[in-house]
Amino acid sequence: MTKYRIEKDTMGQVNVPADKYWGAQTERSRNNFKIGAAGSMPLEVIYGFAYLKKAAAFTNCELGVLTSEKRDLIAEVCDEILAGKHDDQFPLVIWQTGSGTQSNMNANEVIANRAHEISGKIIGEGEKTIQPNDDVNKSQSSNDTFPTGMHIAAYKKIVENTIPGIEQLRDTLKAKSEAFKDVVKIGRTHLMDATPLTLGQEFSGYVAQLNFGVKALKNTLEHLSQLALGGTAVGTGLNTPAGYDVLVAKYIAQFTGLPFITAENKFEALAAHDAFVETHGALKQVAVSLNKIANDIRMMASGPRSGIGEIMIPANEPGSSIMPGKVNPTQCEALTMVCAQVMGNDVAVTIGGTQGHYELNVFKPMMAANVLQSAQLIGDACVSFDENCAAGIEPNYTRIKELLNNSLMLVTALNTKIGYYKAAEIANTAHENGTTLKVEAVRLGYVTPEQYDEWVKPEEMIGGLK
Amino acid sequence: MTKYRIEKDTMGQVNVPADKYWGAQTERSRNNFKIGAAGSMPLEVIYGFAYLKKAAAFTNCELGVLTSEKRDLIAEVCDEILAGKHDDQFPLVIWQTGSGTQSNMNANEVIANRAHEISGKIIGEGEKTIQPNDDVNKSQSSNDTFPTGMHIAAYKKIVENTIPGIEQLRDTLKAKSEAFKDVVKIGRTHLMDATPLTLGQEFSGYVAQLNFGVKALKNTLEHLSQLALGGTAVGTGLNTPAGYDVLVAKYIAQFTGLPFITAENKFEALAAHDAFVETHGALKQVAVSLNKIANDIRMMASGPRSGIGEIMIPANEPGSSIMPGKVNPTQCEALTMVCAQVMGNDVAVTIGGTQGHYELNVFKPMMAANVLQSAQLIGDACVSFDENCAAGIEPNYTRIKELLNNSLMLVTALNTKIGYYKAAEIANTAHENGTTLKVEAVRLGYVTPEQYDEWVKPEEMIGGLK
Amino acid sequence: MTKYRIEKDTMGQVNVPADKYWGAQTERSRNNFKIGAAGSMPLEVIYGFAYLKKAAAFTNCELGVLTSEKRDLIAEVCDEILAGKHDDQFPLVIWQTGSGTQSNMNANEVIANRAHEISGKIIGEGEKTIQPNDDVNKSQSSNDTFPTGMHIAAYKKIVENTIPGIEQLRDTLKAKSEAFKDVVKIGRTHLMDATPLTLGQEFSGYVAQLNFGVKALKNTLEHLSQLALGGTAVGTGLNTPAGYDVLVAKYIAQFTGLPFITAENKFEALAAHDAFVETHGALKQVAVSLNKIANDIRMMASGPRSGIGEIMIPANEPGSSIMPGKVNPTQCEALTMVCAQVMGNDVAVTIGGTQGHYELNVFKPMMAANVLQSAQLIGDACVSFDENCAAGIEPNYTRIKELLNNSLMLVTALNTKIGYYKAAEIANTAHENGTTLKVEAVRLGYVTPEQYDEWVKPEEMIGGLK
Amino acid sequence: MTKYRIEKDTMGQVNVPADKYWGAQTERSRNNFKIGAAGSMPLEVIYGFAYLKKAAAFTNCELGVLTSEKRDLIAEVCDEILAGKHDDQFPLVIWQTGSGTQSNMNANEVIANRAHEISGKIIGEGEKTIQPNDDVNKSQSSNDTFPTGMHIAAYKKIVENTIPGIEQLRDTLKAKSEAFKDVVKIGRTHLMDATPLTLGQEFSGYVAQLNFGVKALKNTLEHLSQLALGGTAVGTGLNTPAGYDVLVAKYIAQFTGLPFITAENKFEALAAHDAFVETHGALKQVAVSLNKIANDIRMMASGPRSGIGEIMIPANEPGSSIMPGKVNPTQCEALTMVCAQVMGNDVAVTIGGTQGHYELNVFKPMMAANVLQSAQLIGDACVSFDENCAAGIEPNYTRIKELLNNSLMLVTALNTKIGYYKAAEIANTAHENGTTLKVEAVRLGYVTPEQYDEWVKPEEMIGGLK
Repeated sequence: MTKYRIEKDTMGQVNVPADKYWGAQTERSRNNFKIGAAGSMPLEVIYGFAYLKKAAAFTNCELGVLTSEKRDLIAEVCDEILAGKHDDQFPLVIWQTGSGTQSNMNANEVIANRAHEISGKIIGEGEKTIQPNDDVNKSQSSNDTFPTGMHIAAYKKIVENTIPGIEQLRDTLKAKSEAFKDVVKIGRTHLMDATPLTLGQEFSGYVAQLNFGVKALKNTLEHLSQLALGGTAVGTGLNTPAGYDVLVAKYIAQFTGLPFITAENKFEALAAHDAFVETHGALKQVAVSLNKIANDIRMMASGPRSGIGEIMIPANEPGSSIMPGKVNPTQCEALTMVCAQVMGNDVAVTIGGTQGHYELNVFKPMMAANVLQSAQLIGDACVSFDENCAAGIEPNYTRIKELLNNSLMLVTALNTKIGYYKAAEIANTAHENGTTLKVEAVRLGYVTPEQYDEWVKPEEMIGGLK
Repeated sequence: MTKYRIEKDTMGQVNVPADKYWGAQTERSRNNFKIGAAGSMPLEVIYGFAYLKKAAAFTNCELGVLTSEKRDLIAEVCDEILAGKHDDQFPLVIWQTGSGTQSNMNANEVIANRAHEISGKIIGEGEKTIQPNDDVNKSQSSNDTFPTGMHIAAYKKIVENTIPGIEQLRDTLKAKSEAFKDVVKIGRTHLMDATPLTLGQEFSGYVAQLNFGVKALKNTLEHLSQLALGGTAVGTGLNTPAGYDVLVAKYIAQFTGLPFITAENKFEALAAHDAFVETHGALKQVAVSLNKIANDIRMMASGPRSGIGEIMIPANEPGSSIMPGKVNPTQCEALTMVCAQVMGNDVAVTIGGTQGHYELNVFKPMMAANVLQSAQLIGDACVSFDENCAAGIEPNYTRIKELLNNSLMLVTALNTKIGYYKAAEIANTAHENGTTLKVEAVRLGYVTPEQYDEWVKPEEMIGGLK
Repeated sequence: MTKYRIEKDTMGQVNVPADKYWGAQTERSRNNFKIGAAGSMPLEVIYGFAYLKKAAAFTNCELGVLTSEKRDLIAEVCDEILAGKHDDQFPLVIWQTGSGTQSNMNANEVIANRAHEISGKIIGEGEKTIQPNDDVNKSQSSNDTFPTGMHIAAYKKIVENTIPGIEQLRDTLKAKSEAFKDVVKIGRTHLMDATPLTLGQEFSGYVAQLNFGVKALKNTLEHLSQLALGGTAVGTGLNTPAGYDVLVAKYIAQFTGLPFITAENKFEALAAHDAFVETHGALKQVAVSLNKIANDIRMMASGPRSGIGEIMIPANEPGSSIMPGKVNPTQCEALTMVCAQVMGNDVAVTIGGTQGHYELNVFKPMMAANVLQSAQLIGDACVSFDENCAAGIEPNYTRIKELLNNSLMLVTALNTKIGYYKAAEIANTAHENGTTLKVEAVRLGYVTPEQYDEWVKPEEMIGGLK
Repeated sequence: MTKYRIEKDTMGQVNVPADKYWGAQTERSRNNFKIGAAGSMPLEVIYGFAYLKKAAAFTNCELGVLTSEKRDLIAEVCDEILAGKHDDQFPLVIWQTGSGTQSNMNANEVIANRAHEISGKIIGEGEKTIQPNDDVNKSQSSNDTFPTGMHIAAYKKIVENTIPGIEQLRDTLKAKSEAFKDVVKIGRTHLMDATPLTLGQEFSGYVAQLNFGVKALKNTLEHLSQLALGGTAVGTGLNTPAGYDVLVAKYIAQFTGLPFITAENKFEALAAHDAFVETHGALKQVAVSLNKIANDIRMMASGPRSGIGEIMIPANEPGSSIMPGKVNPTQCEALTMVCAQVMGNDVAVTIGGTQGHYELNVFKPMMAANVLQSAQLIGDACVSFDENCAAGIEPNYTRIKELLNNSLMLVTALNTKIGYYKAAEIANTAHENGTTLKVEAVRLGYVTPEQYDEWVKPEEMIGGLK
């Protein structure tokens, strides 16, 4: 049977499981918000809190409003949290108060009680060594800590997971583009046969897409690097010592190794989360690109006998529980499902972003959760797709050649020689008769066989463009 | 040079083009909302106003608060509007006040001034024969007229354009499904070759999708048939005579020939437009279905030589300005673009729907415009797709047979004879060796040639399911 | 150190943790799809599988293709799964193959190995008592089992969680509407003061919204009740005994106590998931309604001194870590965050729905996860909002009366007495002078004080409409 | 009665209205795509074509593949188009082929026929002086011209309409922020009273939002400046003279005065429209910001007597057709409706962006229409909102002071003096008793009256942050 201890806050007493560090406000939230699975608040946000609580303690101490003993105790617990030692102490859900106040208090309470314990005392007994509100939360408000925690979490995720994942895939596709630079194949527009290009050129388009995507994502980092901390309740910085905002951002930058700075406008940083809208917009753009790439690859790999079949992708698992021998483009499927999710998340983030009122946007936890999920999924899915699919793509040379040589669209090479109308007539006639372009071109008297062979060379139709 | 006359409202005097029927409030709106193209407010909503203003006049007269002379004058102008004679008298944009007040006043003003003229008087001279507010708008408010106009417009559009369009396409696909019921072809799952089915079965899935879609759309009509009229400013029906709401809905039903009734809750009918959210949700579902169908058809028609090529679609126009002889699935493209637009519009309608405050939702014109656009586009695009594409679809029997007979997935027929593992081995071996299933099945010693021929019959693999 | 045993499938051998029931294909998927958190595939889908695997065993046995011993073994494991005994045996993620094949195999493998164990044998030793493919998956394919599992999971969630949650909140709001039926208050349109209504009328609009929402949701259940099972790989029902599809749906209906039937068109049921699009569309509609309701309530409860303050909501937790004594509308915030998520999920489901190709839609796990999340969150959030907020709403009578009596909009009562223009003049003058309507009405000479008192009675301006 | 002449293309003869310049392919499209209103293809795209056709003529001439006579004729017609002389010659709809081929041909045909006429000949008689395909379309394909036209149109719209509109509003808000810098008011978080700030600080947040938005929008211009022209059919540049792509972009830059360059990867530029996804993502971000701003302003302006009433906005039109004297925040409503539309359009653009296949994205006209609509609406709505609302915003000093002095949240100033718990007790007691903070602070014995007055000064609670 669970044992309880009594904790209290400004509203009175609450029973809290005796083996947990959290206090009254966390427990109230647990009871009042039974929405979805417990503990859904992303751990990344919790770690963001650990960075900022430590930074706040250092800043408060340096500015003379916190003792160095308290600073060190707070910092020690924060380091434990960042080491993953207290992951089970954060039971709250995304679907709580929209300012994330209760997760801020969760952090404050856990830090205070654990610090009490580190000091050699027993939790629930005696005056708290460290006060959750007056010490851990000093010079802070939920309203500036939660967005700071969100920014730290999202920035880290994007530079440590998302961008490296995209770039890993991009590098593989670039290597394939170079490896396939001489593989001439039929082009397709409107899903219909078109003039030829090389498989390498086709892949170069994917590389360009991902390069633009990474660039777009990086463009959003500056906004994301601006931290709300120091704005406190409404952006004015009430109850903070002079110089606090700049210094606390400097400490966060130091502890995370990332270029965080204090927000140039704290009112914007609390009341709007356009930085998250902006960053997720770029994630969505990357999803759009990845969707195109994955779709192309599964169409080109389709078959093995009744599809397009121009490339081969790795067979990683049995494809069907009923059709023996079937191998499916499963990595393309996982990736495109991720893309659909990211596109949906974008709408959730967008809607959340519109609904700030006056001095505060209260869709913070939902926006944080969606940005973090999208950033994680894109990063992971790029790596999975890269390692289990893209890296193993090989051309099916026989099939590529067969489809190329059959094509009627090679007639385009004749446009500049005999004009569009006559070229079209040749193609139409060959299509109707089920014959080749050469046969009809000669039969119609528009070219000699020699001219045809000289003018219609797929390998010369791929231009100088890379 | 434009000549002007002076019109006035409660805020003062305004110059209005002398040749127009509208008055001060319309002119103010024209000047204050220069957003996008002029006149973007859908004409269907204007016609909805004409129906309801006429119905209100009849009801007011029957309930003793309007003279029959005024009723008849109002009704006459409304009939002129419905006959399309005054389309150029409604210059306002969607992006005006969110209650549509200014379009309500546009209707009131045009009706009043035109009635003045019909009475043999000169517009702008003398006491108005009919007062825009006190007569035309009697027992009404913008807050109940605009949603009523929206509902009339949307209901009509859906039953007169959208559903007939979908059903026309559905009927064609049904006829094709029956015509193709014996055309056995290779199935495809994950874009990969799978066990066979008939082309008719494939098309039957499309028919089922559209049947579900029509049903879903019809499910929303009941909510849409409920009219806000009679709620006036905040839903209480202030300033309406007893029995007004029920009677005015009866007149609207009579004039439109559609089963409109008064809303069971007027507060909901003004403050929320969930009926529009509901109806557009069904339009979006239909868009999802149509997108799948159009995609399948263009993939199956792809080629002519390097794609799938199992069906042929009509060649309606030259496909390429540079590649002669190219014929593209242009109707599929127009249709899927419509689908994407409808899916986007759904988000706009959804967001608008969330933002009612207290007694009024002020996203009415935007929601109306999106529902009407989606309803029109789906109806039109279905007809266009039907007449210019679906009706002309023919199987490419040779190609279908070729792809079917090559397939390795016919091995599934052996699962129940020799077990999944051995069947898989046969398929894998044939795939590796580039041989046929029969060759490998026999070589591996799992079946005799006779058994193979008896057990592997594509035409017996299509089940009894339709 | 983890111990392993060897499992194999058609592609070869795989090391599997010795203490797990799953086999080779599950393990391959674990390794190939490291995307997001492990085990993200919703347990509800796993339970859906347990129902259908048991039903398939009963059907196969009844139709003579499975022994009763095997049937009973399979059924026993399925019952264990449904009792929650094997929740840790399903480690796969949403982001796997889009047909959910690997989760189908996970179920097959766990059932087979656990059955082996129940039979008194040691897993990994000897011929499997029950074959994952040939026995557990008999007469099935991933392509028809996964959508069947999805439908079972979603249907159950909606009737057991979502609808009861909405109805619980609806009932509370209905009781409040009746309790507040005589509380006359100022109405607001465009956020501006308008004519009065009762607080009960205002709440009746919320009740109407939720009633429409529940109806819309129920309208989608018929489509959702149709099960794909019996379609096998491509919808033809290949390798199923005659009568299988109808009978297996009957068993599922029996085991779940829900009115499942076999899908009228199996091709639609595999290749499209319009039923999910349809159901989620209704969930989104409910989210739109809830968003409006929660917004209204937090605006009406705003203050305590510088807001609207017409109602009081329960104070469940300290509101601010920096501003003492602050109580926030936290349940409204959790609910509107849920609404934003559901609106985002709707786009993910919509996009997934569009992308079926030929005989199969391969966005199944993503679509399932989103529908289940939305259904869960709406149900939970309604209950949380109901119990922790709605049930405790009380009018602030003093404040309501004060705001009502100050209002200039009561002048509307004079429209029918002295005309719209004079009434407007009174209101404008009072607004400019900061005086009361009565003072100006009399001063302008339009009414006597006695007439004013007789004509302007807020309690008579609320109409007969409920 | 309409008179017709005969025009022909590679598919045969077509009757075309005799008084129109367009030819066979345009007429086919008119007949085959009766979807929505006629002529919906945005004129901006047509003008984009005029720029590029002229640039192509100059380039072709300079590179020796077109005579200077033909160049000059083509250029002359293009200049006429840009002067708006042929707006009625472009009757096609958005919902045509997804490559925009038919609008490219519309441009080619109109230019060719009008050039024929300029040359003194009669349209439809004699050999065409200029051939639509061989001359006007020389070195081009629909596949590279349409995206080029899209990019020109969107870039121009954004730099000439959208950004100036946003900046105009931003400048007004900035001026207001400075003008209101000393207006101390109550802050609000969670819609609840919070610590004070100045009205100027509040507006500075809006300025920051729009500055970030403009920056985000400008970040997308580089991608948008890259033109596909020179890629021709599939991106290889088939049938273009050496150096064509760079030179033609230079001419376009010269003719438009905008910094266009040739796309670094033509395959991306044809097959993906991520540049449009990127640009629209930024437009959506701006919509999110504007929605927040407009919402705040209408809430702060709400009343006049029963709302917040802290600011006054201009009364531009009578607000209600039934409630005299009512003035509504109509510009806020128009603006937020625009925002909702833009958020919906973003999904349409996103979906379109995902669906490129192989060498071509065929959602071009839909994507173009949505980006252009969003860009136009945001620009126009910002100007309308600025001129008719923002510029006229004035503080209601009396009301602001009243709400500020009543507030319980001023207690926060005591946190650092007496601790969070005691401060909370004071606020709670004053709230319960309906008294002032000072009364309770003194009664509870936590401060002296003198201390209270010294410590609780709203004007000192607004921090040094701007």
